[in-house]
Amino acid sequence: MPKVLMKGNEAIAEAAIRAGCLNYFAYPITPQSEVAEYLCWRLPEVNGVFLQGESEVAVAYMIFGAAGAGVRVFTTSSSPGISLMSEGISYLCGAELPAVFVNIMRGGPGLGGILPSQADYLQATKGIGHGDCRLLVMAPASVQEAAEMVMQAFPLAEKYRNPVMILGDGLIGQMMEPVEFPDHLRSEPSNKDGWASSGMDHRKSKTRNLVRSLFLDPEQLNRHNMDLRAKYERMKAEEVQYENFNTEGDYQALIVSYGTMSRVCKTAVNMLKEQGIEVGLIRPRTLFPFPEAAIGEAAAKVSCRAVLSVEMSMGQMVEDVERSVRGARPVQWYGKCGGEVPTPEEIIEVVKTTLASDLSRR
Amino acid sequence: MPKVLMKGNEAIAEAAIRAGCLNYFAYPITPQSEVAEYLCWRLPEVNGVFLQGESEVAVAYMIFGAAGAGVRVFTTSSSPGISLMSEGISYLCGAELPAVFVNIMRGGPGLGGILPSQADYLQATKGIGHGDCRLLVMAPASVQEAAEMVMQAFPLAEKYRNPVMILGDGLIGQMMEPVEFPDHLRSEPSNKDGWASSGMDHRKSKTRNLVRSLFLDPEQLNRHNMDLRAKYERMKAEEVQYENFNTEGDYQALIVSYGTMSRVCKTAVNMLKEQGIEVGLIRPRTLFPFPEAAIGEAAAKVSCRAVLSVEMSMGQMVEDVERSVRGARPVQWYGKCGGEVPTPEEIIEVVKTTLASDLSRR
Amino acid sequence: MPKVLMKGNEAIAEAAIRAGCLNYFAYPITPQSEVAEYLCWRLPEVNGVFLQGESEVAVAYMIFGAAGAGVRVFTTSSSPGISLMSEGISYLCGAELPAVFVNIMRGGPGLGGILPSQADYLQATKGIGHGDCRLLVMAPASVQEAAEMVMQAFPLAEKYRNPVMILGDGLIGQMMEPVEFPDHLRSEPSNKDGWASSGMDHRKSKTRNLVRSLFLDPEQLNRHNMDLRAKYERMKAEEVQYENFNTEGDYQALIVSYGTMSRVCKTAVNMLKEQGIEVGLIRPRTLFPFPEAAIGEAAAKVSCRAVLSVEMSMGQMVEDVERSVRGARPVQWYGKCGGEVPTPEEIIEVVKTTLASDLSRR
Amino acid sequence: MPKVLMKGNEAIAEAAIRAGCLNYFAYPITPQSEVAEYLCWRLPEVNGVFLQGESEVAVAYMIFGAAGAGVRVFTTSSSPGISLMSEGISYLCGAELPAVFVNIMRGGPGLGGILPSQADYLQATKGIGHGDCRLLVMAPASVQEAAEMVMQAFPLAEKYRNPVMILGDGLIGQMMEPVEFPDHLRSEPSNKDGWASSGMDHRKSKTRNLVRSLFLDPEQLNRHNMDLRAKYERMKAEEVQYENFNTEGDYQALIVSYGTMSRVCKTAVNMLKEQGIEVGLIRPRTLFPFPEAAIGEAAAKVSCRAVLSVEMSMGQMVEDVERSVRGARPVQWYGKCGGEVPTPEEIIEVVKTTLASDLSRR
Repeated sequence: MPKVLMKGNEAIAEAAIRAGCLNYFAYPITPQSEVAEYLCWRLPEVNGVFLQGESEVAVAYMIFGAAGAGVRVFTTSSSPGISLMSEGISYLCGAELPAVFVNIMRGGPGLGGILPSQADYLQATKGIGHGDCRLLVMAPASVQEAAEMVMQAFPLAEKYRNPVMILGDGLIGQMMEPVEFPDHLRSEPSNKDGWASSGMDHRKSKTRNLVRSLFLDPEQLNRHNMDLRAKYERMKAEEVQYENFNTEGDYQALIVSYGTMSRVCKTAVNMLKEQGIEVGLIRPRTLFPFPEAAIGEAAAKVSCRAVLSVEMSMGQMVEDVERSVRGARPVQWYGKCGGEVPTPEEIIEVVKTTLASDLSRR
Repeated sequence: MPKVLMKGNEAIAEAAIRAGCLNYFAYPITPQSEVAEYLCWRLPEVNGVFLQGESEVAVAYMIFGAAGAGVRVFTTSSSPGISLMSEGISYLCGAELPAVFVNIMRGGPGLGGILPSQADYLQATKGIGHGDCRLLVMAPASVQEAAEMVMQAFPLAEKYRNPVMILGDGLIGQMMEPVEFPDHLRSEPSNKDGWASSGMDHRKSKTRNLVRSLFLDPEQLNRHNMDLRAKYERMKAEEVQYENFNTEGDYQALIVSYGTMSRVCKTAVNMLKEQGIEVGLIRPRTLFPFPEAAIGEAAAKVSCRAVLSVEMSMGQMVEDVERSVRGARPVQWYGKCGGEVPTPEEIIEVVKTTLASDLSRR
Repeated sequence: MPKVLMKGNEAIAEAAIRAGCLNYFAYPITPQSEVAEYLCWRLPEVNGVFLQGESEVAVAYMIFGAAGAGVRVFTTSSSPGISLMSEGISYLCGAELPAVFVNIMRGGPGLGGILPSQADYLQATKGIGHGDCRLLVMAPASVQEAAEMVMQAFPLAEKYRNPVMILGDGLIGQMMEPVEFPDHLRSEPSNKDGWASSGMDHRKSKTRNLVRSLFLDPEQLNRHNMDLRAKYERMKAEEVQYENFNTEGDYQALIVSYGTMSRVCKTAVNMLKEQGIEVGLIRPRTLFPFPEAAIGEAAAKVSCRAVLSVEMSMGQMVEDVERSVRGARPVQWYGKCGGEVPTPEEIIEVVKTTLASDLSRR
Repeated sequence: MPKVLMKGNEAIAEAAIRAGCLNYFAYPITPQSEVAEYLCWRLPEVNGVFLQGESEVAVAYMIFGAAGAGVRVFTTSSSPGISLMSEGISYLCGAELPAVFVNIMRGGPGLGGILPSQADYLQATKGIGHGDCRLLVMAPASVQEAAEMVMQAFPLAEKYRNPVMILGDGLIGQMMEPVEFPDHLRSEPSNKDGWASSGMDHRKSKTRNLVRSLFLDPEQLNRHNMDLRAKYERMKAEEVQYENFNTEGDYQALIVSYGTMSRVCKTAVNMLKEQGIEVGLIRPRTLFPFPEAAIGEAAAKVSCRAVLSVEMSMGQMVEDVERSVRGARPVQWYGKCGGEVPTPEEIIEVVKTTLASDLSRR
């Protein structure tokens, strides 16, 4: 299939269908409503189910129901809507159900605005819900990558029996780029007969499957949590994805940035190179698991004097960058949140100021 | 007033009244329902308002309404209930409204169990809601401290115009201890005339107050977020609270632990001392802001060979400990989650194993 | 107390307080929102409870809860809001709980309009809810009568352990008239210790009270319904109220009309009298029980050639008039619904046309 | 197609599909949950939509949405569930939308029981919602008739642009009888292009369709209500259905009974005939419009000395019987409500007692 020009939100929608997901429950919210607009006519074409829930709270439990029944299912929302799914997401983690959540972030907190941001980083990677739950979080930097990550998300969710979140800023959802849906990313739903409440008629084993997050016996609940922890550790071992940019040679500073923000940073890196200043960049493609080792090593390069976390948020990813750098280099944050994207010029200015300052201690 | 023997949940309830808070909205959930049981008869005695909301989602917005009208208001819940308040808490942060949330944590994720845990650490301190929002989080280790923190929470919430969370494990709520409500912790609600939507009749200034979290202009929203960030930085500068235990002299290992868990750790520290092994302990009393500097310095003591984060969760606070230690010492986690509290013997075992292992690199 | 000039909605609100009802739950809807506006400041003055529910469905069950606990409680709403309370009202009847509902009717069906109507007559008197349930329905024709009926409604509700409805058209709610609240209509709540779930501490009898509408045994449910039926029959025997106007002498036609509509009809009767045409009028003050006997007898007067039901609805009360007249005279309907009140001139015209037509058979 | 043995609830479900209705929204409630159980697998087979709403309130508005979009849609529920749809049904009437509601009645009021009853007669025929709204109400007496009425209901709903209700007692839903779905009752949805909000692409006329029940101008709302009234009058002229049984010759008493109850009455009539007592029976098949004229004439037969309304309710239809008989004969009620069906022996007893009593005046 040739590349077609699509809006990010539409590409996300189509990618889910190409990934074999025919169940979509959602509640509209700017800036991702185009996903629902697209799927409300597209899903019926492929005999899929489109259902607008009565609220995001309800949507989360519709997802729970469908996932528990063993079918591929996903939703899309934006920041406040994701908060409303918080309890449900924790239940999905607790019951070990695979599902895909797309969060096209807008500025917050509260109602905030409707323009792009990356201000849900901490929510997505740390505290999305109560209890020891974690999402596998992927952050696309282009429409093409958004489509591919959506296609990868379903088998990943099934591999780990855990929700996967695609964390995109509003720009990813709204901009148009050429996109294709690689055939090799199509996948068959994994055999869910071992655990899904899909009815005994359709499966060989006639044992009763039970989907639940309730474990009243403390020993059992502890064991369950140890198993979940082992799963999250396995994600850290097997699923880290990131991109290196201009890190082969020496560089004076290292930028860590993701999503659309990283594209602006790359422009800044190129412009700085022309001015004789080398800056390396690491772009996390997965936010959980976070590329701790890669960033730790890149920061430790002898030439590197400072690390900069550039975010469309007020200092969120910088905490993970600090953890990764382990005190080896000063770590600084730069960002904006509210809809304005920092420009290459601003980032160049920040890099220069950082390098000019006394870096002996952050 | 002499000390009286009270259950933690009751002490929390009474403390709120002593702090001058006469508005309580909540939805029952184990293991904190005694707060509601106590207040349903106690609040009418003092002409206060007790209201059971139709859900935790609703409760969060009842809190929003009352706080926006300028009155002291609080709620209590447990893990899943707090998740349901996630969106509302973000709105409170965005609209800069003071309110107090008490989370008597139970084991998760999902339904989990009804026994104590500390598994909402990351949620409370990092990702409670969408957007750049932060709570001031206090963690009591005794019924007395729970009462005092509740009394302190209201003026703190008003000082910062921000929600404050008391994060207690289920043990804090359920156990009985002697408690008093110090008169010096009583406080008057700060003058809210400058911003609360309380009607012009009752205030001198006749300008219109507007409570909102919506800022459609990106520049304005960015400025709003910069102001919020400055506020959170000010919390870090002014509100860090922690307790040192056995840190005056040399110690081979440093334990970081909070809440009821820290009491067990202190017993272990004392027992280890008898065996000739010195272990220091830092107990964060505030979880956000986190005592980064204190832990960083304590970990850097020459005699200290390892840092241990002991939690009733699966590795949550350990991330903040890692950030604080900045690579200076290996950081390890030990914990349980599900209702069983690790015993002193277990902790002693873990300390010994850690010290016996090769600590050159975690 | 001297008469004061009050809006009908305010008089209704104040009357409830004078009747000793300190619990009001409601959801705002035009044209009765002034009741809530008045009570939101007035009830706190008398230590009463004002609570805006999250919907009318919820309000009905808040009423259920309060009534079941043995306190006087009431709500006010308008047509669509009453429909939403339909299930709850049936539950109140089934559980035999006293409560007062005020319906300030607006034009329907559906959203309809916000101007006065009497279009909920059949709903109030026949089909308010599922199952064999009936309300005692009173229809005021002036602000003074509205106040008095509200004051009478509470002891009546308690006498029958059944909801009582005040059915007023929007005019009753909106117009201002001098009103007083007669001391002799004040009443003490009847002793509810025999059945209310108010806790054993406060009552002599230490038997357990159970409030319920569920009777799974068919014989028991039938007996329960026979008891309810006996109660409704007792209402018919003891509570019928109506007003005669110009019925002492002979009259050619009989008008049956209630509420504000009846006041216009009286003007028409007076104007017709000046033209030499005598018309009698019966104004039901209770709609259930309906003054069947009185109307039957008045219609049977030898001089009377026709009966006219004049309503601000499309032919609702006319069914009860037909039943009452028992075929003795032709019965006709005249009405409007939408907000326009039929004028005296229109009614005069209708009376003349009716008398001029061949009345041998309707 | 040959007759198949089906439960009433299943026959109702299948009949709707045969009638070309592929949209079903519902919330489960005994004793009609088999409809949903059947349709949840059957509708997907025919590419239909099965959707369980989050409540009956929601279901009513899902019906509104689908009906407004011009597709055939129906729901089924039982007594309390129908009450919750009360507001929505009024909106459907106001907006003149065709839809089919099946009420498989259980004993009430309130929770009542789960056994059969006919206790929603008044609700269905008089006061289902606020405002001047009426349903066309059909009452089947057998599984076959239930199936046929469902098939007829859709074109009738479209003919009048008004909801149609099938009012069945629980026995109709639960019992099994042979049933066939006559081909001649299949129908095409009428052309809804003139009013449905189905999008302009699919219709010739490019004028904008507006579905609404709001008419703020009183004159317009009155005209709208006059149009609705004319429609209901047209139903009375064109849609009355009833069955005569043993009414050709002379009879001493006339029974009016519908649904399953009428079958028991027929047995009683046959048994009485053997004892030399002739009793006529009229079974209304439509409850609104009610067979007033037929009953009036049958009651007026010279030999007839009394009329008996036999119901599984506490005196509901008897009001319509009284109106129909117009005082010509005494009218009595007999019934039970709670799940027990009156036996032929009981009815025989009642008939004899009635005939033996002084019938000069009821």
